[in-house]
Amino acid sequence: MKSEIIAVGSEMLTPFRQDTNSLYLTEKLNEIGVTVAFKTIVGDRLKDLAGAIRTALGRADVVVLMGGLGPTEDDLTREAVAEALSLTLRRDASQVAALHTRAATWRITMPANNLKQADILEGATILPNPNGSAPGQWLDTTFDGYRKLVMLIPGPPHECRPLFDTECVPRLQAVLPPRAIARRTLRAAMIPESQADKLLAPIYTEYKDVETTILAHAGDIQLILLCVKPEIKEARARVDELAGRIEETLDDWLYSSQGETLEQIVLYYLGLRQATLAVAESCTGGMIAQRITSVPGSSRSFLGGAVVYSDELKTAFADVPPRLIAEHGAVSEQVATALAEGIRLRTGATLGLGVTGIAGPGGATDSKPVGLVYMAVSDGQKSEVLSRTFRGDRHRIREWTTQQSLDLIRKRLM
Amino acid sequence: MKSEIIAVGSEMLTPFRQDTNSLYLTEKLNEIGVTVAFKTIVGDRLKDLAGAIRTALGRADVVVLMGGLGPTEDDLTREAVAEALSLTLRRDASQVAALHTRAATWRITMPANNLKQADILEGATILPNPNGSAPGQWLDTTFDGYRKLVMLIPGPPHECRPLFDTECVPRLQAVLPPRAIARRTLRAAMIPESQADKLLAPIYTEYKDVETTILAHAGDIQLILLCVKPEIKEARARVDELAGRIEETLDDWLYSSQGETLEQIVLYYLGLRQATLAVAESCTGGMIAQRITSVPGSSRSFLGGAVVYSDELKTAFADVPPRLIAEHGAVSEQVATALAEGIRLRTGATLGLGVTGIAGPGGATDSKPVGLVYMAVSDGQKSEVLSRTFRGDRHRIREWTTQQSLDLIRKRLM
Repeated sequence: MKSEIIAVGSEMLTPFRQDTNSLYLTEKLNEIGVTVAFKTIVGDRLKDLAGAIRTALGRADVVVLMGGLGPTEDDLTREAVAEALSLTLRRDASQVAALHTRAATWRITMPANNLKQADILEGATILPNPNGSAPGQWLDTTFDGYRKLVMLIPGPPHECRPLFDTECVPRLQAVLPPRAIARRTLRAAMIPESQADKLLAPIYTEYKDVETTILAHAGDIQLILLCVKPEIKEARARVDELAGRIEETLDDWLYSSQGETLEQIVLYYLGLRQATLAVAESCTGGMIAQRITSVPGSSRSFLGGAVVYSDELKTAFADVPPRLIAEHGAVSEQVATALAEGIRLRTGATLGLGVTGIAGPGGATDSKPVGLVYMAVSDGQKSEVLSRTFRGDRHRIREWTTQQSLDLIRKRLM
Repeated sequence: MKSEIIAVGSEMLTPFRQDTNSLYLTEKLNEIGVTVAFKTIVGDRLKDLAGAIRTALGRADVVVLMGGLGPTEDDLTREAVAEALSLTLRRDASQVAALHTRAATWRITMPANNLKQADILEGATILPNPNGSAPGQWLDTTFDGYRKLVMLIPGPPHECRPLFDTECVPRLQAVLPPRAIARRTLRAAMIPESQADKLLAPIYTEYKDVETTILAHAGDIQLILLCVKPEIKEARARVDELAGRIEETLDDWLYSSQGETLEQIVLYYLGLRQATLAVAESCTGGMIAQRITSVPGSSRSFLGGAVVYSDELKTAFADVPPRLIAEHGAVSEQVATALAEGIRLRTGATLGLGVTGIAGPGGATDSKPVGLVYMAVSDGQKSEVLSRTFRGDRHRIREWTTQQSLDLIRKRLM
């Protein structure tokens, strides 16, 4: 079954705003066996909108309209569907009453305009919207002799998404053959995308019934496995079998077999080993600490650390000897190692991480290019240091350094 | 002049990828006077694509097709335009030669399939693409008796955007009346969006010839003013006049009158006062330092600081007396102030910032809810502390706290 998602709103035709609901709706539609064949974004003009709806009805079986259900003059989705399908709109008495009740609760006088939210398409089912004033609408109709399912849902994400889940998905499922979906996300760190694909393509292409999506970002690779079968047991078995082979192939690169983030995994291992972590960051300037502390409960294993942006702070907070900096430079293996061991001792953490590098665009020297980074981890017994030269702009270099640093800690804890 | 942007590629019809080029293209099109009336996303199916192109030709004067110009079987944009407009494709000899040269440079044998990138639409102008192997194409044609401008450009952002700027924009300008555009971005911090709109709407609605866009995110408000006139002087005068009135109205809330970020402004003031800054962050866990250090050259005024996630580190790195923590709790006015003053003394910075709060979801007590945050700034002479209770999830609370903290420093420096 083919669908089209139409996002309605002139603001999404500016350089400033983008439709994001459609990604969510696409996931939900795919899960129940509906492919998205087209997405259209159209402004608040009746003629454009009615035309776009006719186009969609001509090429898709399911048409999802998001937005344009509010009380203003610009909210024209109801009127446009009525025009495209030659239907009438009736003002629903119970919806009018609901709008009055809502206004009374909020102690506001309701502008007359608001009542248009009670306009219901001939033959449509009202879809209750507990998070907003305009209800959704569901229309099981025909266009050019073909059956078409049309749904009108509100645009704000906190109204759109729950309403779609609660009201639209079950109605769609009722007209579709039953399916069971198994899904798993695996994640790997620091493996080059081309190498991952070279290793994995021969494997996942064997599983024609499992859809494999590979997403890569700044040293992080996500593999999303999706399988649809009549029975959930069968779907899960296929996904798990493929996941097992991927795990084996990716070996140490793989850090997560249920979609956890790298920072979650690092915290998980720290908890398991009853270990604590502290970090001394120079070029990442807090990005590593920030990523770790984004996880609720991270305070159990993460003590904190220092952002040692200046040379003086490298000494003040992590006891890096000034002569080490003078001799080897702040961006050096020696200083990274001293930072790791220094912050560990200072904080009493089990593990210390030290990071120093040149994020650019300035700061390069003849022997030290922009992107050169040293990352060290120490547990008092043994310290380990990695050197990398990352490419890209300041933001990208900092992102890659953060990812590589977290992966270094993970490997030490494994 | 009305345009439609068509993004071609099945990956953009999955839950995982979104077209982002169109925001860039929209900005460029708007600048030269072309509105975007529709955006369509369509997969790699010849029939769907040819249909979408016909629909676009029927409702827009300018049709921009992005993607589907590569060498694989799935790359069907050329073929689809040929079908939609009943044009032939010819294999261009100079493009074939260019592909062979490219393959030789990269020392690879060129698969025969690659040659389809040399297929040019009858009557089209070849648009050179220095960043990739497939050239763009420009077609000045007619459809149903109307003149239509159709451009085919590659999908990868680093190919799409420069090619559009260099090859498409000047060609569009040549057929459009000349226009001059003035644009300015103003930014304000921590003013509630509704209050900003209440204050500003009476002003900007007076300027019918200036388009004002208001974007709000986590305590940051951007006002984008755009004016189009035959003469640039006139356009600038209108934008500057409105900007002046907005500056006056927003007063202290306004921190930037040329689009600079809050962290850039904080660093600017620090430089101006020859002052330095150090931070001691608890609940933001490095987010403030990270934002400041995202600015190139921030090391001139930002020394660094400490992520004092545990109580022990509050003492170890910022000399917060343990009895202060025992008496008032780690999340208190007293501890925030002690953090600010402690980190300042420890680092020798002119200004110290201390932040402590409950980011959630855990950690709340009867008297201290999730979202409660204390932020203090100290210069040795005087310390100042703010208390706020932010709403939302962990990420949102941390974002708002970061914004409020940077704004606190800005106000102290003003």
